[in-house]
Amino acid sequence: MLKRFLPILDWLPKYSKDQLQGDLSAGLTVGVMLIPQGMAYAMLAGLDPIHGLYAVTVPLMLYAVLGTSRQLAVGPVAMVSLLTAAGIGALQPATPELYLVYALTAAFLVGIFQLAMGVFRLGFLVSLLSHPVISGFTSAAAIIIGLSQLKHLLRIDLPKSEHIQEMMVALAKNIGNTHLLTVGIGLIAIVVIKYGKKIHKSLPTSLLAVMLGILAVWGLNLTEQGIKIVGEVPSGLPGLSAPSFDPAVWKSLLSVALTISLVGFMESFAVAKAIQAKHKDYQVDANQELIALGTANLGAAFFQGYPITGGFSRTAVNDQAGAKTGMASIFSAILIVLTLLFLTPLFYYLPNAVLAAVVIVAVIGLIDLKEAFHLWKEDRSDFWMLIATFVITLTMGIETGIGAGVVLSLAMVVYRSTRPHIAVLGKVPNSTYYRNVQRFEKLEQREDILMLRMDGPLYFANLTYFKDRLMNLMTARGKALKAVIINADSISHVDSSAVHALKDWVTEIQAQGITLYFTSLIGPVRDIFAKTGLVELIGENHLYMSNQQAVDHFDHTPSNQGETQDYKDYALQSNVKK
Amino acid sequence: MLKRFLPILDWLPKYSKDQLQGDLSAGLTVGVMLIPQGMAYAMLAGLDPIHGLYAVTVPLMLYAVLGTSRQLAVGPVAMVSLLTAAGIGALQPATPELYLVYALTAAFLVGIFQLAMGVFRLGFLVSLLSHPVISGFTSAAAIIIGLSQLKHLLRIDLPKSEHIQEMMVALAKNIGNTHLLTVGIGLIAIVVIKYGKKIHKSLPTSLLAVMLGILAVWGLNLTEQGIKIVGEVPSGLPGLSAPSFDPAVWKSLLSVALTISLVGFMESFAVAKAIQAKHKDYQVDANQELIALGTANLGAAFFQGYPITGGFSRTAVNDQAGAKTGMASIFSAILIVLTLLFLTPLFYYLPNAVLAAVVIVAVIGLIDLKEAFHLWKEDRSDFWMLIATFVITLTMGIETGIGAGVVLSLAMVVYRSTRPHIAVLGKVPNSTYYRNVQRFEKLEQREDILMLRMDGPLYFANLTYFKDRLMNLMTARGKALKAVIINADSISHVDSSAVHALKDWVTEIQAQGITLYFTSLIGPVRDIFAKTGLVELIGENHLYMSNQQAVDHFDHTPSNQGETQDYKDYALQSNVKK
Repeated sequence: MLKRFLPILDWLPKYSKDQLQGDLSAGLTVGVMLIPQGMAYAMLAGLDPIHGLYAVTVPLMLYAVLGTSRQLAVGPVAMVSLLTAAGIGALQPATPELYLVYALTAAFLVGIFQLAMGVFRLGFLVSLLSHPVISGFTSAAAIIIGLSQLKHLLRIDLPKSEHIQEMMVALAKNIGNTHLLTVGIGLIAIVVIKYGKKIHKSLPTSLLAVMLGILAVWGLNLTEQGIKIVGEVPSGLPGLSAPSFDPAVWKSLLSVALTISLVGFMESFAVAKAIQAKHKDYQVDANQELIALGTANLGAAFFQGYPITGGFSRTAVNDQAGAKTGMASIFSAILIVLTLLFLTPLFYYLPNAVLAAVVIVAVIGLIDLKEAFHLWKEDRSDFWMLIATFVITLTMGIETGIGAGVVLSLAMVVYRSTRPHIAVLGKVPNSTYYRNVQRFEKLEQREDILMLRMDGPLYFANLTYFKDRLMNLMTARGKALKAVIINADSISHVDSSAVHALKDWVTEIQAQGITLYFTSLIGPVRDIFAKTGLVELIGENHLYMSNQQAVDHFDHTPSNQGETQDYKDYALQSNVKK
Repeated sequence: MLKRFLPILDWLPKYSKDQLQGDLSAGLTVGVMLIPQGMAYAMLAGLDPIHGLYAVTVPLMLYAVLGTSRQLAVGPVAMVSLLTAAGIGALQPATPELYLVYALTAAFLVGIFQLAMGVFRLGFLVSLLSHPVISGFTSAAAIIIGLSQLKHLLRIDLPKSEHIQEMMVALAKNIGNTHLLTVGIGLIAIVVIKYGKKIHKSLPTSLLAVMLGILAVWGLNLTEQGIKIVGEVPSGLPGLSAPSFDPAVWKSLLSVALTISLVGFMESFAVAKAIQAKHKDYQVDANQELIALGTANLGAAFFQGYPITGGFSRTAVNDQAGAKTGMASIFSAILIVLTLLFLTPLFYYLPNAVLAAVVIVAVIGLIDLKEAFHLWKEDRSDFWMLIATFVITLTMGIETGIGAGVVLSLAMVVYRSTRPHIAVLGKVPNSTYYRNVQRFEKLEQREDILMLRMDGPLYFANLTYFKDRLMNLMTARGKALKAVIINADSISHVDSSAVHALKDWVTEIQAQGITLYFTSLIGPVRDIFAKTGLVELIGENHLYMSNQQAVDHFDHTPSNQGETQDYKDYALQSNVKK
């Protein structure tokens, strides 16, 4: 029982030397990666770089104790950093100190939300984010993040914004002031980070670029040439900090905190599940993950961090480097603690442009054109969903983008169910199968029988559509029509509005002297038919298990095409007690 | 072509004497009904009674020309009058003149909305209102309308409100001031209107109550006893009037006008369809109906009326009295015109309490307890939908009520599809049928085969649910499991997120050495499987038309249970061009 709430108890008691070796190597690799990334993402979030390092001390340890994934590497990530910057930027805090308090408050609220979602088992909420929405949203956010770093890469003044149109205007106005030496350093850093990997896969290229940058600025005295540097980085561990408890501040951070909670959890849980599927020696649990991430964010709030979550690429590196348990994260945290204690003076000469390069390389990989091409070919309506989410995110902001994506994709689900696929069926020659006459040639259709299959639930919003289609098909048959057979195989639900309508239709069709059959009702729908008296109205001998049985009944022939019984009990079974 | 836009051309050229007789009788009957109802509903809307009569002059003639229903009787109705009162009341107009301008503006906006909806063919929008939502909303609105008339029936001061809690508090405070003579007149009127019908079905009981009321007040000099009367009613035809074109007024009336447009159209179209189903010598068209009602409302806006729509009981009376064409409406309008020209002085002594009685009798019939009882027994979730709509409408207002109803019922559609019904199938002995093992005894289940049927679309929001269920079922089978057969009969759609997930699952299941089959894919889903490469991944010989064929393939036995071919072409057909 205790293990359920403290997953660390699952692996710590049986910790082995084998695991230690993998964890140590992975922990140090990720720690080395975290130093430049933490500082770069903190800068993206609008904070001093040091807070990116603070954010990977206590929170990492908390996740190691509470998390169900054994390879997930939590910490600052690009998306959440951007969301933080956008959310706090909108409040226009007067001083950097106030900005930090807002960031701590955001982490605090994210922690509370995620904890609450975990406790109330709302982990399923992330399944409302469909693949095209996530893809369109991520690509757009990556572009916004990349553009936001041009400020440091070109050393020009750009106002904070998360709307592409404003960014482009500001860029056009200021691009003349580009500082060429800064651009040069930035581009070299990008090349080192991106193509260094080609020399050796596990080369810590970001850290390499950071070191080269520091050496170049210090050795060549580039600050005198106008290169902007990180400057004084305080040394020592993070002190205790407190978020704001002002309800007005909470209210204005509410929506961004909710977005971070969901988006952060989604990113984290997706990678945790993907890695777990490779290992299979443990299970990840959505609700416990929420509790672990929530607690980690509370840790960030009280130890000078800012909102964090599980990172995609960082987790992959952790896994490849051999991480076996949460101990890897603890080693990463220890490396960061040592850095904070002894190495911060080294970062004085670190150029901002190099940190910008770290961010840009990280987000370029998130721009996913392939998925858009894929969807264009495979699912046109999901393609437009992706494009809509992408454009709204780019032009109207991150939170609006993801919100609109969710609403649009749910609206599409409803819209699709209002115009269900309806097929007219014909008989496959010499068999008892009936199939869509528009898809197969040589199917046998009889003039006196109209056989239909409707695919989807029959409910208030598609009643008119179904009725119109049915009536048109019946009218087209004219006087020859003597029987209508509705194959209800794929009618997954019938609501009360549909029951009312069905009663009218059944009476109406029977009044025209046409015999009406329903075949292959699924169990839950049979229950509804039994409960509401539709069975009596249609007649027990007009409900069959198969289309052929209905046709045979209509022809007054005993079932003879491969049937030896009429399976009446099966066609009429329901769980309703009379 | 012209007939499509002017349905009057359909019947006027071949107008017959027979039709004339029916239309004249029906037109006069409805006209007589319209006199008290028009005045009563105008009072309900917060207007002088005369505007209820103005509203049934020009608009009736416009509908006769443009409408597709031949029996629909348009004019003021209770629900729309209440919505008008609630919408304008919220704006707190300073003078009765301003109140009238707002009412004209509401009619104008309703006209524009309905016209636009008709032109853009948005008539299907009303199908978003489910049966339980309409029922709960109508019952609650009827109660609010009835309570709003207590002011006139008891002759006490009650503030305008559409929230039951405020109404009850005000009623409790003021009920001590009840004027007993007024109550007496009102109750007599109610009895006359309601039970007079028992003497003779076609007795115009409302008009009778009005005449009795006028005679009593005039003959017994009851105004001196404190009976409130209608007073001066201007005679003559309505002059031209203009709605406001102030954008601020439009903005504040927007939401109520939209609600009236939808609710009014819904009420009108429902009765038009019901009557058409009896006659069958013409068709009603949702979009042309919107155009006709929209134009009629514009007529109301420019000739001193207020928002109108097709009325339920009035249309039934029109039909029973023999209406054959729109000419009946024209006769009704002529009767009202004659009344306006010559009879208005007669209404001077008409007691308000009698008009209140007209409204109360009309709305009492709308309170629908039976439907709630029905749903309690037949569809519990729709029962709660009805109750939620009912309670929200009563306590939070008419517009909020119907909006919440629509949102709730769509949310329910989505929610239901996120947890689709999943059945484990077993074989019906001595047959090739497979059915839900939880519903039938004696089904044959094999240890090595897990056969599932999922009912509903497979899409982003139910992927996790389906995967979890599948994995739990597979785990429960343990090592014995060798094949999984997914019966896709009732999977109505597969979106791009599901395709991504399916690819992962197929690979994952195959990697465990378990053979995976899909059977009975419907056409549109086959297309998606073909287009996205799922067919290749699953393997063409793992897709079958029936469950038995998959089992036979797994057993390496030729199909022999009633099958003579394997129908491969049918199982693999798709409309996708390779």
